[in-house]
Parts: sequence; structure tokens; C-alpha cells
Amino acid sequence: MLNTYIIGASGYTGAELAKMVYTHPHLNLAGLYVSANSLDANKPLSELHGQLKGIVDLPLTPLVDPAAVAAQADIVLLATAHEVSHDLATMFLSKGCQVFDLSGAFRVKGDDFYSQYYGFEHQHQQWLEKAVYGLAEWNSQAIEQAQLIAVPGCYPTASQLALKPLLKSGLIDKNQWPVINAVSGVSGAGRKASMVNSFCEVSLQAYGVFGHRHQPEIATHLDCDVIFTPHLGNFKRGILATITAKLAPGADAEKVAAAMQKAYQSQAGQHAVRLLGEQTASIQNVVNTCFCDIGWKVQGQHIILTSAIDNLLKGASSQAMQCINIRNNYPQLTALV
Amino acid sequence: MLNTYIIGASGYTGAELAKMVYTHPHLNLAGLYVSANSLDANKPLSELHGQLKGIVDLPLTPLVDPAAVAAQADIVLLATAHEVSHDLATMFLSKGCQVFDLSGAFRVKGDDFYSQYYGFEHQHQQWLEKAVYGLAEWNSQAIEQAQLIAVPGCYPTASQLALKPLLKSGLIDKNQWPVINAVSGVSGAGRKASMVNSFCEVSLQAYGVFGHRHQPEIATHLDCDVIFTPHLGNFKRGILATITAKLAPGADAEKVAAAMQKAYQSQAGQHAVRLLGEQTASIQNVVNTCFCDIGWKVQGQHIILTSAIDNLLKGASSQAMQCINIRNNYPQLTALV
Amino acid sequence: MLNTYIIGASGYTGAELAKMVYTHPHLNLAGLYVSANSLDANKPLSELHGQLKGIVDLPLTPLVDPAAVAAQADIVLLATAHEVSHDLATMFLSKGCQVFDLSGAFRVKGDDFYSQYYGFEHQHQQWLEKAVYGLAEWNSQAIEQAQLIAVPGCYPTASQLALKPLLKSGLIDKNQWPVINAVSGVSGAGRKASMVNSFCEVSLQAYGVFGHRHQPEIATHLDCDVIFTPHLGNFKRGILATITAKLAPGADAEKVAAAMQKAYQSQAGQHAVRLLGEQTASIQNVVNTCFCDIGWKVQGQHIILTSAIDNLLKGASSQAMQCINIRNNYPQLTALV
Amino acid sequence: MLNTYIIGASGYTGAELAKMVYTHPHLNLAGLYVSANSLDANKPLSELHGQLKGIVDLPLTPLVDPAAVAAQADIVLLATAHEVSHDLATMFLSKGCQVFDLSGAFRVKGDDFYSQYYGFEHQHQQWLEKAVYGLAEWNSQAIEQAQLIAVPGCYPTASQLALKPLLKSGLIDKNQWPVINAVSGVSGAGRKASMVNSFCEVSLQAYGVFGHRHQPEIATHLDCDVIFTPHLGNFKRGILATITAKLAPGADAEKVAAAMQKAYQSQAGQHAVRLLGEQTASIQNVVNTCFCDIGWKVQGQHIILTSAIDNLLKGASSQAMQCINIRNNYPQLTALV
Repeated sequence: MLNTYIIGASGYTGAELAKMVYTHPHLNLAGLYVSANSLDANKPLSELHGQLKGIVDLPLTPLVDPAAVAAQADIVLLATAHEVSHDLATMFLSKGCQVFDLSGAFRVKGDDFYSQYYGFEHQHQQWLEKAVYGLAEWNSQAIEQAQLIAVPGCYPTASQLALKPLLKSGLIDKNQWPVINAVSGVSGAGRKASMVNSFCEVSLQAYGVFGHRHQPEIATHLDCDVIFTPHLGNFKRGILATITAKLAPGADAEKVAAAMQKAYQSQAGQHAVRLLGEQTASIQNVVNTCFCDIGWKVQGQHIILTSAIDNLLKGASSQAMQCINIRNNYPQLTALV
Repeated sequence: MLNTYIIGASGYTGAELAKMVYTHPHLNLAGLYVSANSLDANKPLSELHGQLKGIVDLPLTPLVDPAAVAAQADIVLLATAHEVSHDLATMFLSKGCQVFDLSGAFRVKGDDFYSQYYGFEHQHQQWLEKAVYGLAEWNSQAIEQAQLIAVPGCYPTASQLALKPLLKSGLIDKNQWPVINAVSGVSGAGRKASMVNSFCEVSLQAYGVFGHRHQPEIATHLDCDVIFTPHLGNFKRGILATITAKLAPGADAEKVAAAMQKAYQSQAGQHAVRLLGEQTASIQNVVNTCFCDIGWKVQGQHIILTSAIDNLLKGASSQAMQCINIRNNYPQLTALV
Repeated sequence: MLNTYIIGASGYTGAELAKMVYTHPHLNLAGLYVSANSLDANKPLSELHGQLKGIVDLPLTPLVDPAAVAAQADIVLLATAHEVSHDLATMFLSKGCQVFDLSGAFRVKGDDFYSQYYGFEHQHQQWLEKAVYGLAEWNSQAIEQAQLIAVPGCYPTASQLALKPLLKSGLIDKNQWPVINAVSGVSGAGRKASMVNSFCEVSLQAYGVFGHRHQPEIATHLDCDVIFTPHLGNFKRGILATITAKLAPGADAEKVAAAMQKAYQSQAGQHAVRLLGEQTASIQNVVNTCFCDIGWKVQGQHIILTSAIDNLLKGASSQAMQCINIRNNYPQLTALV
Repeated sequence: MLNTYIIGASGYTGAELAKMVYTHPHLNLAGLYVSANSLDANKPLSELHGQLKGIVDLPLTPLVDPAAVAAQADIVLLATAHEVSHDLATMFLSKGCQVFDLSGAFRVKGDDFYSQYYGFEHQHQQWLEKAVYGLAEWNSQAIEQAQLIAVPGCYPTASQLALKPLLKSGLIDKNQWPVINAVSGVSGAGRKASMVNSFCEVSLQAYGVFGHRHQPEIATHLDCDVIFTPHLGNFKRGILATITAKLAPGADAEKVAAAMQKAYQSQAGQHAVRLLGEQTASIQNVVNTCFCDIGWKVQGQHIILTSAIDNLLKGASSQAMQCINIRNNYPQLTALV
């Protein structure tokens, strides 16, 4: 049993992680932590997330001595803010822990990225270089060897899993930037009080037009410019991405299908992508599951793909768990189905 | 045209009032005010409530000189917090304005009521004595003469309109307290950021069990003890009250129907109650309308009534407008249908 | 007062029309009709649409003698299925009635269009030629002269109002087809029982990919190929269209803004478009209003526009009413704000 | 491994059952059946319930030879209509199968019950006598010995689990009938197309006032008259019951708490009831769980209880699974947490 700690356990992602670790046959949920000055400190997790009552009643311990945690930990899950992950990760890494970071702090290499898109100067370029991007279906070999895994964001996961097979096979005309329209449930904004997330104010609406930091995360990892427009939807969880792209000369429906099959079909049951063919993906079918559903249709030289995930699971927690499973040689969907 | 001012215009109730006054043929929407230190000060109302763009773009003026407003005002609508209404009303009254207060500050007479249920000592007992309770269908004669009208709360309106005809006719066994279960849309909690109103946290749930201050408002005005259990529902607006009561000896379905008809049917088109007979009231049918729908069914010695209103309209703004109409001899539903 | 009849009045669109005609100062709501074998025949409209109780209680008369209706009618609103409108319209036209058709039966000229996209051969090519497309903000001069107005569909209205000013001014690169992603509330599918519209089955999902008949309606009237992907959203009413396009060489943010201003700003208050500049359109702000909100943002050579309407109002009923107002020289938003 | 068959597997309850049986360590999901003329016959279950894709892709076999199923079955789950269960159960029983019936066909003993409330004459009085009511927390000893378990309805489960401890201890004044107001998610009406369940028509509303057949089920099993008013809520799953009762003379908050503790606390972790004390139950906390949350508050001689379950789980499928676990000596919450 590997001792597993969750730092930043009070939010929606933390609660999902806690439940997964609790049910995992090879992990021991050793402790839940929040920042030392959190208003939720010392409350049982189940007081904040009532559905966990009787299941995970562990308290949210204030994190005053990270080194003491590191000394006990085999695995550390960071469900913390970007800067907090940036500051904490190296200490856990230096003590030999496996670190799975759900923030954006180690997702994209490059000198200027963090100052430009996250508002802080990255201080740990060496670890940034070593970090492996935890897109489970595509980076499993690297994940197996990594000590620091940067779990992708929710929009990037839905977008990349759909586009990557086609780009890899040269089936997309990259001169005409793919258009990614995505709608996220409100839980994507985290567990907090705000006017924007207030029940009466939520209504389908685009935000962050031409300015969301998941755009460069997607474009960098796909090595392809994209136009990405996120929307807030009036539902609690789930993301649907609808992607329109132009096919490269010579590409057709058959080649697209073959690329999808090659990417995902051969390893059926071993990963979390489900191919829908010409059906369209639906949020309802993926919510509360670890899966990414992908459908697509070709007409002439255009393709429309739909890709759906649970933003808190495949877009965060269950993808982190997939990475843990890969890293430690457990079946990839352990504790997930 | 009567000069009409709305104080506390930034909330959901204020926005509804503004639109009604704007469309009213005999009222002039002279000004919108917010407290002097409001973060919304000087913004156009339509910046907060985008549906009003192009209709009511008036700014939210900070209220620094209430006396100057009073000097211009024929009618003042107070959509302010209880204490603010308590403090402001008398100044407007002393200048001869008609004051329609949507807060709880003047709803219930009695020495201890405000210290017990609202947490402040009432300083204006004379005006509290003179205030008329603006339950439009029942107090129109008094409203016609009043200078200060205390518009009832949302739960009390739905509850009283259903029970009052039966109690008036002695058809309810008051020894067995009527049970009022009511569910309100989230807008009832006002326009503000809070965890409780956060989209992801809202879920049907009772609150304020045995402790909501609308219970004594209902009981006092009905002169009948009641058990009142409010619930937060997962919808934006509307209230449904389901009321279970024991009939008095000798009461039956026929007498109940006659009492309902007598109370509401004779003045059809002149007021905002719609009788449904044995059908049940539905929130969908009253949302965005000024109506209270009431259905009921008798079996043996028990009766179940359902009563539905739009909490922001018949439970606040449109009832205030009904009172304005009554007070100034306009047809009662002017600007409302 | 013009005698106005609504054929096909039982649906959501019909109910909205009935209420508007009822409140219109120059129209007389003379009758509501449904097909002769409708299960709703002879019921009061308010039995189907409870919110209209006490407002429009007129019965839904079975339409057995259209000629008798035509003899009385100044204005006929057809809220009927495409084939029914196709079959009925000419009779009313031949009797001199003004006909406002909310179906697709007269929206697009061309020999093959109806056999290809609607599954029937059009039999009234002369009237199809004469029909004026009722996109109110763009065709008012033609509408003033027309006897048959084909009111645009909901998706085409949201899409065209956003794109037309830019295409007119040559600001869009038509070689790279604009991508229109749109999400509609469930009421767009009409008032009927079906698994797809069942409460438990509704979940954000694309449908009709590369195959929806609103695509050719949009492309034909804009004279520009477009990729149009409709989605079903988990809300009752409203449409949000998010449109991504490439600008023509030389086009920039300033020219875009000028084109928008020229199209819509000069006639403020006279039409139903509201410009949001760089803000994004939101469904909540247009639901229950007659407005189309349009926002946009330019970056480099790309533009993203968001356009929101109430699908039952600006996407159907209120646009029909705008056309009636234009045709009869009433202020364009009469009965609408 | 016990061979387990689900008859009537196409609905929401069937899908939940299939997933539970699939994940149960001691059960083998041997087959899924639908009625021979079902439109869903031969489709994979995951075609109807997309979230099960890749998990339960078994086909829905048309049930043409029940005896052949019985010959293979250790356990039969009937998620069928009342009459179908009534007709099928005895055949499976005669072959020695354990039968867990989720319909109402064997829930209440007594000659007239089925003709009065279900519209058919019960033909299997002997099995009706032998059937054990599967309220897991209360009847475990009888369930251990039973061959036919009648799993309680959703409203009765939420209501009885809250009231039973108090009635057992004589703490309720039975002369004043407890008032049960309950709101159910739309999935309670089953997977089917209907106007009532149509997305645009659903709105919080009472139904079946004084006439729902769960009232006699509750009253009989509690041996106490109750007033039960069900409501349809605008959410997919979950039930919240708010119960108001008068305490018996001498009863007080302390005795109530003791009765609750005695009933549920002593067997913590062994059953599916969670006590909330003075907190109120919330649908969000129980949806997708097997738990019933119960809160309560006493004031004077009255008590208000709130009780929440997932209608498809503790109100149907997970309670059936609890019964299977009890009957076969597995830990009671196997496959449930």
C-alpha cells in the first residue's frame, strides 16, 4: 500500500481524489491537507462534501510542516493553486515522492510561458523540463518513468484527445486553424462564492475570448495553432468540445477512422477513450465516469469532432489516478470503473 | 405622471420594479438609487441586469441626500435591507411621499417582534402602527388610504392567499396547526455571491426549520399558528407552497369551494389570484407573471392546498405595483399584464 | 383594429403569438385554430399554457373551413408545420390576407431546395418568388410592401444578424467558411412528447452535424458558405450562436465596429438588435425579450462573434410581430417591449 | 459466483442494477432481458444508456422462454411493470431462484389492496404472504430467510426510514396524522416519452394529491395513518421527504435522538442510513450514493424530519442489492460504496 496524501483537498477535485484513493486497492489515503490559514482547516472532508459522509470523514489538516508530510508520503497529489503547486512541488520531489500536480504549474515548457499566461516567473526550470505531461493515453511510457506528472487541464484534455490522432497522421490542414468551441459545467470554476457562479447569474455564455490560458497549452502540446473559445454552461459538471477543422489534401473519412482506431481501439479496456464513430458525444454519458467520448463526421474537406469528459474526473482527478496507475504498474483504470 | 423613485434598485427585485415603473402609463421613473458606498454606484442598471439594456439604462445613483429625493418624489419604493428601510422610511413619509416598503421593517405590529426576529429595536412605533400590510387582495380599502404600505414577503403572500379565505370562513381546525411546506427559487436569497447560492451547491433542501421569520409574519396576519418549513429549490424564481390542514367540524369540499369563490371569483380580472379548483399549482405557470395560482383538494377532514407565485413579482415587485395602483386608483393590474 | 388569426396556436410559438396579439393596441385576436384532428381541439389555449390563464382563454378551434377564416381575417399567422403552411398559405393570400408564415415553407427560393431539404416538392413557385424573408432589421422596405412574409428560423436569425453587417462590408474572408456553433433550448423542438426531449435524456449535445436544413437557409441568405453545427442545450429557451470567421485582408477591429454601428446603431430604439461590443452575449439577457444581443472580438485576422436570442421570440414570434408592425406602419417594437 | 439475471433491464433502474451486478465480486451478470415485443430488444444496454459503454455492453435479450432463464438463474431481479412481475415471479420462484422484485406486486399483504390501488386482482396470495418487504435496515432477519423479496418503492423508503424509529418507540402522536411532503426527480417516472416528463413542461408541482398508491404502502408498513403528497421536481434524480409530525405526550428531543441512535447508529457501516442530527438532508449529498440521509428538529410538541435518497438507488436498485447482500451473507454494502 502506497501512502498517498492530497494537498488542497477541500475543493471539488480534492473530494473526487479522496474518494478514488479511498477505494483504490493499492493506495492508503494517509492524509488530507489544506493551506494553513484555510477556513476549512480541521473540518472533516465530509462536512464540506456531504456525499462522502461515512466514506471519507478524515479531517482537512492545515499544512504547517510539508517536510513532515513528505517524509511519510509515497505519492503526493497537488490539487492546489498554480503558485502553491509551483512553490510546494520541489520539496516533495526532493524527498523522493511521486508528485501528481493538477495545477498548471508544470504543464508547459518554455521560458516566457508562466510570466505571460500565469502571472509569475517560474523558479524551477529544471523540474519544469523533467515534468511529464499526464495525458494518459498518449504519454504512458514517459509517465512510467516520471517523478513529476503535470496533469492536463480539463479543456486541453477534451481537445487534445480528439485532435491528436488526426494531427499525428497529418490529416489536418494546419494552415486553417481548428476551431474549438467548448462548454464547461460550473464546477470548473472551483468551489467558491462568486457572482459569476451564483445560481441566478449562470447562463450559457462565452468567456475569455481569445484570451484563455488553455489555448497555448493546447496549441503547444498539439504543435498546431487553434482558436479556442470556452463557455460557461448551466450545469454542474462536464465539458463538451465541438471542434471544426479542415482536412489536409488527400485526407478522407476512411483515413480519419483509421487514425482514430489506431490511436485508441487497439488498447481497448486499457484506457479511458471511447470512440463513438458518427454519433455525437454527450455530457450525460461521461459525467461521473472516467471516460472521454469522441465522435466525428467528415463532409468534403471539413471534419467536425465532438469530445466530452467529466471536467472533474477525466479533466482532473481520474486522469491523475490514471497517471498514478500507469506510474505504479497497476491496470490503468483501477479504482475508476 | 407621478414621480417614482426606487431605493435599493440594484437587486433582482429592484430590476423588476424598474421595468414595471418604466412601462406604467401613469408613473415616471424619476431615479434609481443605491447606498452611497455600493460597488454598483453610478453603473447603469442595465449593466447589472443585461435584459434591461435599451429599456432601463438609468444609472444607479448613490443615495447621499435622501431629502433631495424626497422633495421630488411622489412615490418611493424601498427595495432595501430591513434596517435601511427602517431608517429611511420616516424621512420620506414626513415629506408626504407615498412609501412602498418591500422589506420587513413595517410588516408586523407589536413591541417585541423586531427585537426578537430581526435583531433590532424598532424606533418608529407610530409609523409601524399606521403602516398597512400590502396584501393586495385583502387590504385594498386600507391601502387606498395609507401613506406607508408594507409589502408582504414572498412566502407569506403564497401562504396567506391560500389560507385566508378558509380561516375567514371558520373552515380550518386551528387546534391542529396547518403545515406549510414551501420551496423558493434561489433569487429569493437576493443578488449576491455566497457559497449557499453557488450553482454547484444548490440542491433541494429545507432550511430555517422552526426558525424562519416568515413564520410569525404568517401566523400573526392569519391569527392562526402554523408550522412553516421553507426550502431552497434548484430553480431561479418562483415559490410553491403546499399546505396541509385539518378542516373544522362541519366543513366540507363544497364550503371550501364557496369560500374560495367568495374571496376571489367575484372580482375576476381585478386582482392577481387565479383559482385552479382541484388542479395543482405549478411554478412554471406563474413565473414572470403577477399571479398567484391556488388549487386545493379535500378528503375526509383534511385539505391540501397548493399555491404558487413568482417570488420576485407577486412575492415582491408586482405586489408593490398592485399596491401603487390601488393607492392611486389605477386599475389594479396596470403594467402587470 | 386588424382582425388577426393564429393557425397552429397550440405550440410554444403559438402561445407567445397569442399573448402578443392580445396585448397589441392595434390588433384584435380574432381566433385561434388547430388542425381539425388535433387532440387539443376545443380546449382553451390556457389549458395547455397555464401561464395564460385569465389572459388568453380563447379556445383552440379546429380548422375545418379555412375559407371562412380567410373571409374575416386581415392578418393570418401560420405557426404550422412546413407542409401545412405550404398547403394553406395560398388560400389566405388569394383572399387578400396578409400572411406571416413561421414555418420554412417560403423562406428560400430555388427549384430544388424543398425537395432536397424538406422532403416535398414546392407547388407554389410564384408565391415563393413573391415571399419576402422577414429578417426585420434587414428587409424592412420589402416587408412594407409584401403580402407574404416568411419569418426566418431561430438559428438563421441569430447567425445572420451577426454576420450580415460584416459580409455586406466585405470584411469576411469567404474562402474560409465561417464556423457557426449554436446551442438551442429544448423548446426549439416544439411542444411534444419524445425521448429526445425527455427531461432525463436532455444533455448538451450536437445534432444534425453537416445535415441541418438551417445551414442552406443561412448560406443562401448570406451568400456565403458556412459550417453550422446545432446543439441541444439543457435549458428551456434561448439560442446562443458562437461564430468564428477569418477577416478579409485589410479588415480590422475598427472597420468591424464601424460596420456594426452602421447596420444597427443608427436606428436605435427602432429595431431589436443590441450591440455589446467586446462583451459576450448571454442567453439569460435575451430570454423573454425580443432582442438579439451581439458581441464580438477581433484578434489578428480572426473574429469571434456571439449572438443570443430567445428562440421562441426573436427566433419566431416576436420577429413575426416585428414584421406585422413594419408591414402596417406601427412602431417596430409595438407589443414587444 | 451467483448467476444473476435482470428482467426489464432497459429502464433507469435496470441500468443501475446492471452496473452494480457487474461490479459485484460474487455475482455474475448472466443476462439482461426485456419483454419480447420491446423496441429495445437486441440492442446493447449501452446503446440506451451511453454511460455504460465499454462497461456493460450486453444485449437486451427478448424474454421468450422464461423457464430457460430460470433454469440457469440463481438470482432474478425483476425491474418490470407491476403486472409483469405479478405474472412472472412465481415461475422463477418455483424453480428455486431468489427473486428480488422492484415492482409493487408483492409489497403489501391483504385481499383488496391490489384491486383497489393497482387495478388488478392478485392471483398469488400464497407468495404474497411469504414475500418479505425489503426495507433493508429493518427486515434483515426475514430477508436472510426469504426467497421472494419485495423491494420498497422510493417514496416509502425515504418516509419509513425516517418515521419508523419514532413510531417503534411510541414517540409520535398517531391521532394527528404525520404529513409527508416529498419531491422526486423526473427519473421516478421511468424512461419514456410523455408530455409530463418533457423538458419544457417539467416544473415543481404536486400530483396524485390524496390518491398516490405509495400512501397505503407507507401507512400499512408503518401501521400509522399518514398524509402523503408527492411532487415532481425539476431535477433528474433524488427524493427529498419533509415530514411534520406531532410528538406523543412525554416525547422530547432527547428521546427522539435516542430512538434514532438505537435504530441506526449501533450498526454503523453495516447499513445505508446516515444520521444528520439537526442538519437538513439534501438531495445533492445522496444522489449517486446508496445512502438515506435523515435530519430532524424538535420544537415543543412538533418534529420536522427531512429524509433524502437517490430514488433510483436506495429507492430501487441499491436497496435491491442490499437485499441480495443480506440474503447471501455478503457485507451489506458490497458493490455499493
